[in-house]
Amino acid sequence: MLEGKPTRTELSELGEFGLIDLLTKNITLKNKSSVKGVGDDAAVIDYGSKQTLITKDLLIEGVHFDLTYMPLKHLGYKAVVVNLSDVVAMNGTPKQIIVGIGASNRFSIEALEEIYEGIYLACDKYNVDLVGGDTVSSTSGLFISVTAIGEAKKEDIVYRNSAKKGDLLFVSGDLGAAYAGLLLLEREKEVYKADPNMQPDLDGYDYILGRQLKPEARMDVLKLFKDVGVKPTSMIDVSDGLASEMLHLCLDSGLGGAIYEDKIPVDITTAGVAEEFEIDPTTCAMNGGEDYELLFTISQEDFEKLKDTDGITVIGHMTDKNEGVNLISRSGTVVPIEAQGWDAFFKK
Amino acid sequence: MLEGKPTRTELSELGEFGLIDLLTKNITLKNKSSVKGVGDDAAVIDYGSKQTLITKDLLIEGVHFDLTYMPLKHLGYKAVVVNLSDVVAMNGTPKQIIVGIGASNRFSIEALEEIYEGIYLACDKYNVDLVGGDTVSSTSGLFISVTAIGEAKKEDIVYRNSAKKGDLLFVSGDLGAAYAGLLLLEREKEVYKADPNMQPDLDGYDYILGRQLKPEARMDVLKLFKDVGVKPTSMIDVSDGLASEMLHLCLDSGLGGAIYEDKIPVDITTAGVAEEFEIDPTTCAMNGGEDYELLFTISQEDFEKLKDTDGITVIGHMTDKNEGVNLISRSGTVVPIEAQGWDAFFKK
Repeated sequence: MLEGKPTRTELSELGEFGLIDLLTKNITLKNKSSVKGVGDDAAVIDYGSKQTLITKDLLIEGVHFDLTYMPLKHLGYKAVVVNLSDVVAMNGTPKQIIVGIGASNRFSIEALEEIYEGIYLACDKYNVDLVGGDTVSSTSGLFISVTAIGEAKKEDIVYRNSAKKGDLLFVSGDLGAAYAGLLLLEREKEVYKADPNMQPDLDGYDYILGRQLKPEARMDVLKLFKDVGVKPTSMIDVSDGLASEMLHLCLDSGLGGAIYEDKIPVDITTAGVAEEFEIDPTTCAMNGGEDYELLFTISQEDFEKLKDTDGITVIGHMTDKNEGVNLISRSGTVVPIEAQGWDAFFKK
Repeated sequence: MLEGKPTRTELSELGEFGLIDLLTKNITLKNKSSVKGVGDDAAVIDYGSKQTLITKDLLIEGVHFDLTYMPLKHLGYKAVVVNLSDVVAMNGTPKQIIVGIGASNRFSIEALEEIYEGIYLACDKYNVDLVGGDTVSSTSGLFISVTAIGEAKKEDIVYRNSAKKGDLLFVSGDLGAAYAGLLLLEREKEVYKADPNMQPDLDGYDYILGRQLKPEARMDVLKLFKDVGVKPTSMIDVSDGLASEMLHLCLDSGLGGAIYEDKIPVDITTAGVAEEFEIDPTTCAMNGGEDYELLFTISQEDFEKLKDTDGITVIGHMTDKNEGVNLISRSGTVVPIEAQGWDAFFKK
């Protein structure tokens, strides 16, 4: 990834002041609430009468990403988007981010600039201001810590714990594609390691590769809610897989729930790749993660408003707690949904 | 540090849900503005008519701390305090923190609990709510990323860039002690490595060791400002050393400035250790860092209100830009203050 760059400036060639300046000199603040951005002890944000949402996620090399196939610019973009997605999952509008990067001296100034290019691209696309940044040395590898700040009217915020029995369960987009993309990229990496002259064979897989390398936060779904006049009763973004997120909604709301396997939206490319790898496409959707779609519940009376909407799918409903949290298979078998446990922590 | 613990639970023994629960089960939210804490996609904070301050710092093993002599509980405490200090340096009141920890499987559950003990201790002492936490695996070592959120009335916020020519420069407490403490700890580490049976010889050094291992954010100084009715014209906390912070105040305010060497407050223990190590105590103060004292300017007319106050010292003044940023030595020599450059990035 880095070898192709024509120039390489060592981090040590720039002073601390120089690096911060280099990486942040082109910032223009876009949001009125961004009172003070980079350049003081803390950013200053003014939310008047709205409520502030704030979240942070860490991405660590070798755990959450692999630079063999993840371009640095995409990495910067994704690090921002996964955080914005958390704000969106509260029905909020992301407004600011703060970025912290730890990089070993394996990384050049140009490498950091590429990451920041992706960060700024995401800021532009989502109309978000970068209001603080810190780059420190790490003893090994690269990690990115992003904090996202957003706003919402108090009455608009959607929590995880407020689903009601009988509510219908929806998901936006399709699931499992990011994981299918990861499977492909991992395979091509192995092929490349075995024979560096082999060209990667990724034709026709643009969609699922994009889902892995350049995910988006579904702000368009929030707009849809507004347009049709629906407020979900609970919502979460699908970062760890449908199984884990469903458990969050059910456990936090004190309910059980059912997902119908045949309703889970899976793209045809995802299904094809799953078949190639001899993995059940449902497993990709349930446990794959990184789709950043929205999983949400609505009350039954709102069903009419959403039932004909493209791009969202009803996949189940919420039940009494003692019915448990279950996947109803195509054959009608009831399979309890369980936490993936520590696998998620150590995954990849 | 870890060997002394009687039990060791592997991270893999707990599910993800279990760990978050274990580490956050005792939280009680203290601030009215903390609407929603741990347990959703994002924390929810309500600041009504005040402005929000937000900042984040990263602490990385092997770069910012060494677990040979830094107890995990102290590490947790310090990781919080250095962030609160950034809010305080804006004349704001810290209210919430979000914590992200990356830990390799070298660390047990008990180790993470010790870190969190220190985090909660700092939260209690500073009346701050932990409103979000994330623990992920790292491929090697430990790092902690803390985001601090605070509030202030718009008219109370003090920036770095608002000092005026002729303003007087003050610093709270004394400087260089945290660095002197670090020198001692590094020496004892070498002694221990050479002969593990040697007992560390740290008697009489409590003050400077405490400054390194358990720094505090100077909220008491903000109270002092309020009590005497002074608002600083600019302010910054001393995290990277007096030289670096003075450059920030001067460059950001478009001014020059002068610090008088003989006015810089240095504790007698610091001076003694500096002498032992054959380092100029002024160097400890100028370049040592990690003191987390407040460096601030006031207009001359406010001097009467502060001149007899214990625990703050006038050390210089702000000048015209073209006079430069200088240290006036004891002998009267004018020495330009320069950025430490990348040393700070790779220090330790």
